[in-house]
Amino acid sequence: MIKSSAPENYVCPICLGVQEVVSDDTLMRPADIIYKDRLVTAFINSFFVGQNAGHAIVVPNDHYENIYDLPAEYGHRIFDVAQRIALAMKEAYGCDGITTRQNNEPAGDQHAFHFHFHVFPRYTDDGYNTVQPSEKRLAEPGQRAEYAAKLKAQLTK
Amino acid sequence: MIKSSAPENYVCPICLGVQEVVSDDTLMRPADIIYKDRLVTAFINSFFVGQNAGHAIVVPNDHYENIYDLPAEYGHRIFDVAQRIALAMKEAYGCDGITTRQNNEPAGDQHAFHFHFHVFPRYTDDGYNTVQPSEKRLAEPGQRAEYAAKLKAQLTK
Repeated sequence: MIKSSAPENYVCPICLGVQEVVSDDTLMRPADIIYKDRLVTAFINSFFVGQNAGHAIVVPNDHYENIYDLPAEYGHRIFDVAQRIALAMKEAYGCDGITTRQNNEPAGDQHAFHFHFHVFPRYTDDGYNTVQPSEKRLAEPGQRAEYAAKLKAQLTK
Repeated sequence: MIKSSAPENYVCPICLGVQEVVSDDTLMRPADIIYKDRLVTAFINSFFVGQNAGHAIVVPNDHYENIYDLPAEYGHRIFDVAQRIALAMKEAYGCDGITTRQNNEPAGDQHAFHFHFHVFPRYTDDGYNTVQPSEKRLAEPGQRAEYAAKLKAQLTK
């Protein structure tokens, strides 16, 4: 059993996002949601990174901290939805590639302690590998909603 | 349908690795294999990166280029095996975290055109985000075999 990295009495911002609670305890907003089913929800990330704006995360609807404890049923669905998002981004964003990334524990760059699987649009010479996690920038809800609308339209085609 | 990024008449080094063919067309060697079943194979990567030596990749046994065309059956198994490797690395390497990454198309840093899912051991302040893909270094077969032995022992416990 691997020790939790979350502080005591952790108020999970991703659980709030999944429950569509609008609160000061989460940056996530219902308009960020691009996909939802019984097991998982996908959002436009609250932070944009480098030239890779509008990236998505896929999360389990129930609280699991990281890859160590995620049940297979959720992991499988997360793969399926990440794949659909990758294909949708290719069409909706016109990106040149896709990189997925999933971080576990603070030493692995995990900052929100609820499993989340990142799907990044990639562009030729986008400098993705030179951007530090500390350089991420909070995106305004309106900016996120623009990307969410594009992806949702593609996902429901 | 997304266009293949592989050159014409591509000799796939990962297919050769899965088939355990020792050839100048692949850096992969049978001793790098840490897990194999009907659908997927996991290897110690031929290249080591920064302070994250001995990272693993999980690949489908059949040739699929990337996330766009990987059938769900393979994707699900890859999740399962990546999770087992993450847990095994925590024990066998004593690492402080895990990061997974999967690249698609050259713009997304894909260099071998057969789907491969990276599982990296992470350590506190390991500088992982400052290491460029060009800085990867070919590991000697003997170095890889050491990590493979550790992980295999843990995976079969």
